[in-house]
Amino acid sequence: MLIPKKKQKAVQHGFPPSEFESRLVRSQEIMFRHQLDALILTAPSNFRYFTGFDSQFWESPTRPWFVIIPLSQEPIAVVPEIGVEALKKTWLSNIFSWPAPRPEDDGISSLANVIRNLPHRFSRVGMELGREQSLRMPIIEMRVLALELNGNEIVNGADALWEIRMIKTVEEVSRIRHICKVVSEAYALVPKLVKAGDTEREAQRKLAIEILRGGADSIPFLPAISGQGGVPQIVCGPSDREISNGDILFFDTGSTFDGYFCDFDRNYAVGSVSDEVRRAHELVWKATDAGIKAAFPGVAVHELHKKMAAVLENGSNTKNNVGRFGHGFGLQLTEPPSNMPGDETIIAPNMVLTIEPSLEYAPGKMIVHEEDLLITPDGPELLTHRAPIELPIIE
Amino acid sequence: MLIPKKKQKAVQHGFPPSEFESRLVRSQEIMFRHQLDALILTAPSNFRYFTGFDSQFWESPTRPWFVIIPLSQEPIAVVPEIGVEALKKTWLSNIFSWPAPRPEDDGISSLANVIRNLPHRFSRVGMELGREQSLRMPIIEMRVLALELNGNEIVNGADALWEIRMIKTVEEVSRIRHICKVVSEAYALVPKLVKAGDTEREAQRKLAIEILRGGADSIPFLPAISGQGGVPQIVCGPSDREISNGDILFFDTGSTFDGYFCDFDRNYAVGSVSDEVRRAHELVWKATDAGIKAAFPGVAVHELHKKMAAVLENGSNTKNNVGRFGHGFGLQLTEPPSNMPGDETIIAPNMVLTIEPSLEYAPGKMIVHEEDLLITPDGPELLTHRAPIELPIIE
Repeated sequence: MLIPKKKQKAVQHGFPPSEFESRLVRSQEIMFRHQLDALILTAPSNFRYFTGFDSQFWESPTRPWFVIIPLSQEPIAVVPEIGVEALKKTWLSNIFSWPAPRPEDDGISSLANVIRNLPHRFSRVGMELGREQSLRMPIIEMRVLALELNGNEIVNGADALWEIRMIKTVEEVSRIRHICKVVSEAYALVPKLVKAGDTEREAQRKLAIEILRGGADSIPFLPAISGQGGVPQIVCGPSDREISNGDILFFDTGSTFDGYFCDFDRNYAVGSVSDEVRRAHELVWKATDAGIKAAFPGVAVHELHKKMAAVLENGSNTKNNVGRFGHGFGLQLTEPPSNMPGDETIIAPNMVLTIEPSLEYAPGKMIVHEEDLLITPDGPELLTHRAPIELPIIE
Repeated sequence: MLIPKKKQKAVQHGFPPSEFESRLVRSQEIMFRHQLDALILTAPSNFRYFTGFDSQFWESPTRPWFVIIPLSQEPIAVVPEIGVEALKKTWLSNIFSWPAPRPEDDGISSLANVIRNLPHRFSRVGMELGREQSLRMPIIEMRVLALELNGNEIVNGADALWEIRMIKTVEEVSRIRHICKVVSEAYALVPKLVKAGDTEREAQRKLAIEILRGGADSIPFLPAISGQGGVPQIVCGPSDREISNGDILFFDTGSTFDGYFCDFDRNYAVGSVSDEVRRAHELVWKATDAGIKAAFPGVAVHELHKKMAAVLENGSNTKNNVGRFGHGFGLQLTEPPSNMPGDETIIAPNMVLTIEPSLEYAPGKMIVHEEDLLITPDGPELLTHRAPIELPIIE
């Protein structure tokens, strides 16, 4: 029996406390293996992972915020006074604060005090010092902190953090699945919304409005880039360039729902494009297919790269500036692993990955495809509505 | 004679090379006083300030990007290969790159090489180590960098950076003025767009779409928070709470145009609110007025705080969790200085400041106002359309 539309469970914002309790238990097990008495976290994505705290106030760098994940206790927040009321709505029961901004001691003494009072087992405290992480506090204050920790050594906690965050929970996947659907539906509207003569900026704005209408919370990443027969680069745009016959219009987006990103792109042909462009597009489409089909638990991510590269080697130039063929994502637009030679990460159930081959088929003319996958025990599950093998047309 | 609307010069994206040349000359003078041979910059706002590079790719933390500002040469970019094509469109002529991601050496050796080849005058290199700055690279790699600099000491460059960025150029002000106007016009539509029974989330989405339609490039910050007679906090929201009679609906936004933020809020009464609420609103409005009127060159920012507090002391509780009554802004939502006791910064022409008094007139009921000012030699120029003294009504 079909469930009537109204009765279908809508994806809600926010997680129950049990979600954070189970994240914590699993994380503490990983921390034990990494010999960490605690993690001190400052970055929005890590703070949110453990607390559920949903705020755009991170945009203001004036005040640092801290959450401490002890090895065998519940998380402890040390936050500016402006954050206490909002933190009380999360599952946390241990909240310390200071009257911020207070440049002479913006939370450091309170933070050090919390750490000193934790049991010392390994005397090692992990912070966000490693790859694909950054520390959201003035570095000069970290030096003060190190002195106040009385024999606790500050070490790189990034490896433990990525081991924790790389495997998504069912609740996390439901958010990622939802934002992938919202954006897939918005991308499908592009041929109706955008027309030749629009600037890249106008095209981007039209798509942004549809993504918001569809239910995204925010759109931190939405490049719109065009070029005759392909794009010269994929990181910078939109500009005031008008799209015209023979162009490829390329969109990519990291839009979010409940803190979780999608990350996938789409290509459109403006009017008519050459057979060469269509062939390049089809080749990259097939490389994407090869990447998707290879994404089984137990396979190393560099193998995905190899499978995609094998397809692209039929093209004129497999070299380009992107540097990898996809990556992890979640609370960040990009997360480890990287689908590239040298990354030995083994694909496991409940990882989410982008599959993103790219080809510079002629100088300055790139075609890049991207889809988002969930890894299930049985193999890949596509979270995005698969791009068509034929380029959609903008008139 | 009125200039016909079509002929009015539209605010464009992007700056001419002369803008960056004059930023550079002024910056190098400041660097000389701070005895810095170079600044090594990693954060989006600093990178953009010196290069004009406009990208949303900062959302991916996988690859660090560097720009070096030497004491007496043009800037030198050291960026991942994926960024070279886009960087070539800026005014920079010195661009080095490496094939990224390359975890074993993500740009560090190239960066160190550039620094080693600069003239040594002070043997001090400034980085983003201090207040309201953060370093966008793995901290563990900074340690490697320090070892490779051959006698150049890494020091805190934040004081020099804030001296540089706190005074805006005419071109910067034009962008800030434009985004303040766009958002002022969108805020004016709220009573027509939003109705009692909408959730905070729906209200926020409606406003976001209007801000985009008006011409904003992005909306990194747009809390929407409601509460009976005032709001308990201002950093966290929207939620699924439905707004209803007697509520205050509070919006705040940092939307951007060409990289530059506005930062100001608005309050709306839902249906009818009590006289107590109206009195509190009027008091905060008057405090805002006092702050605006005091913002003359030569005055210290803590004096602004004092003037606003003097008005609010007629209210029941001048204490609240915000911690200051406004601040600088520009390429960041919040920048120094802080309008608060202890901040001795002297107001100078071409600073932009928010004036943001707040009052918790009853427990859990805050009213916060905010306007944006440009400081001219003759005093304050309001960049926002002044909020009315009477609360606008949402039916």
